[in-house]
Amino acid sequence: MTDVNEINNLLPWLLRRDNVARYDDGVVWIGDRRKYPFTREFVRCADVEEVARAIETMVTQGGGPWVAACLAMAMAARQAKDKRPHEMRDALEAARRRLISTRPTNTALARRLEDLMQVALQALAQEASVEQAILDWLNDLRDRAYLDYAVRANFGAALMADGDGILTMCFAETAFILSLAFAQREGKRLHVYTPETRPYLQGARLTAPSVHELGIPVTLVTDNMPAYLMSQGKIHKYFTAADLITLDGHVVNKIGTFQNAITAHYHGIPYFVFMWGVDRKSPDRDSIVIEELDASEIRRCLGVPTTIDDIPAYYPAFDITPPHLVAGVITRKGVLSPYDLANQL
Amino acid sequence: MTDVNEINNLLPWLLRRDNVARYDDGVVWIGDRRKYPFTREFVRCADVEEVARAIETMVTQGGGPWVAACLAMAMAARQAKDKRPHEMRDALEAARRRLISTRPTNTALARRLEDLMQVALQALAQEASVEQAILDWLNDLRDRAYLDYAVRANFGAALMADGDGILTMCFAETAFILSLAFAQREGKRLHVYTPETRPYLQGARLTAPSVHELGIPVTLVTDNMPAYLMSQGKIHKYFTAADLITLDGHVVNKIGTFQNAITAHYHGIPYFVFMWGVDRKSPDRDSIVIEELDASEIRRCLGVPTTIDDIPAYYPAFDITPPHLVAGVITRKGVLSPYDLANQL
Repeated sequence: MTDVNEINNLLPWLLRRDNVARYDDGVVWIGDRRKYPFTREFVRCADVEEVARAIETMVTQGGGPWVAACLAMAMAARQAKDKRPHEMRDALEAARRRLISTRPTNTALARRLEDLMQVALQALAQEASVEQAILDWLNDLRDRAYLDYAVRANFGAALMADGDGILTMCFAETAFILSLAFAQREGKRLHVYTPETRPYLQGARLTAPSVHELGIPVTLVTDNMPAYLMSQGKIHKYFTAADLITLDGHVVNKIGTFQNAITAHYHGIPYFVFMWGVDRKSPDRDSIVIEELDASEIRRCLGVPTTIDDIPAYYPAFDITPPHLVAGVITRKGVLSPYDLANQL
Repeated sequence: MTDVNEINNLLPWLLRRDNVARYDDGVVWIGDRRKYPFTREFVRCADVEEVARAIETMVTQGGGPWVAACLAMAMAARQAKDKRPHEMRDALEAARRRLISTRPTNTALARRLEDLMQVALQALAQEASVEQAILDWLNDLRDRAYLDYAVRANFGAALMADGDGILTMCFAETAFILSLAFAQREGKRLHVYTPETRPYLQGARLTAPSVHELGIPVTLVTDNMPAYLMSQGKIHKYFTAADLITLDGHVVNKIGTFQNAITAHYHGIPYFVFMWGVDRKSPDRDSIVIEELDASEIRRCLGVPTTIDDIPAYYPAFDITPPHLVAGVITRKGVLSPYDLANQL
């Protein structure tokens, strides 16, 4: 079985554990995904508010925010370590609320922080170091997350055939990148097509350089090109991550995921989605609230105006792909039907 | 019946006759679409070479290049007016060749300049002013083009219902914009959604400001959002122009047109396309060669790099939408089935 270090070493720079976010003597360092791939820099955060702002301003994304948020909680515990128990509890609770508010749609973040609060309160009750308890718990969680990535990446790699053209969207993170690395290690030749993913260009900035770093051929396109690539026979499989999958199989992911799923289905190309975990509070489509982000971002690219300020714009962060467009959900248990998640998980 | 001035007055700044390109006492002024909508400027051209360079550097596009090229021919005639007939003929011929070379694949431009040469040579034979003959011929041609836009725009406007959300792609030019103006004049309330159209952002730069200038509500989105807008019930019709429609009903248009057509079809939204003219040399899909443009444009937005230069990219200029996704082709004769063009036109 693959171990955590081996996994870490297979990954490109961006996804290596210490480059996502790390804790260094009471300070949180977050890999700055806004500056990658041009430079490899970190944002230094000395308190919860700085971490929250870093998450809000998209310093990190994908698997980064929850790690950074948990590290911020360790920092909050350290800063309140000389206070009385109820003050420590209040400080942690305030930190938790502030951190949850950074990504209201991200229920995984909220759940992680709930679990963390249990760990923290238990340490507090035992008069142990709350900071250390959080860090130990998080380290163990991250170890298990990497092993979990590897389990799902093995299922993902098995779905990739020699010669496949693979479409993705946004930045499908470790499970997807690791699937490519595993498939490559097995000698499969792949070609990855990555849409740039406007407005934040995660496809251009994160996915394309990460795949390129693995030595797998990659081609960058704009978000209006996937259907044409499909019509040319260049695409055989479509893979994305998911911000959330409802129990009845609706995939909530970066805006654009849905239209690629429709055009994939039109061309007979299967769509596979990596599932992180189960959220029993999201039974169906109606339980989802799609976050709207700052529409002025749509009038800009990399800070440069693309049109005049008078023009109204709209920026839904995510879209929803219904289960009939999903060929399989890649979970720890294997590649499941989107219609059977509630029973299987 | 609407007259040419009335049409012109309904149009937004960008599409008004004098702002596309105009002739002023031996000088050609071309509306600078690279600087619009931020400024409304003209490029001044004092000879054929300056017009040719303006066309080559994308000062104008769509319906602009052929008008500018014809005006350049009038300028060439004026500059050679005191020469002997065979010298005038040589000067016009040299000008024609230079102007054709600006857009080697644009057969419409080449055909217009062939027609213009006949007009010029006839004036020369009759010892009339060649400059004036060209200008008169061009004025008449532009009048007829505007009336032709109006005919198709009337059919387009009739397809738009009060309360409709209208999706478009790229910059669908005068026939589309005029349809909106006609529908608005009839009291229909519309809302236009315009994808920005990467990499050149014609949707953000040209379409959105033009619709906004008409006083019609417009919302700018990125190219990955149309399907989500459709799933929200915001879109009722999809309209585009076409660079070319084959006799068997395949629509060749700006990359991205196809995937919007697929997602529109999935949502039961009809797709209508404005047809300019018939090209009997394009019978079917196999007769089309899709131009590939400079892939480095995909790694940039407005000149700013979106990723590192190492990343390979791909830039097909157009895509092809098959006739089964086309609800109607808007022609001078009405809204035709894409399957009946060869018989009707």
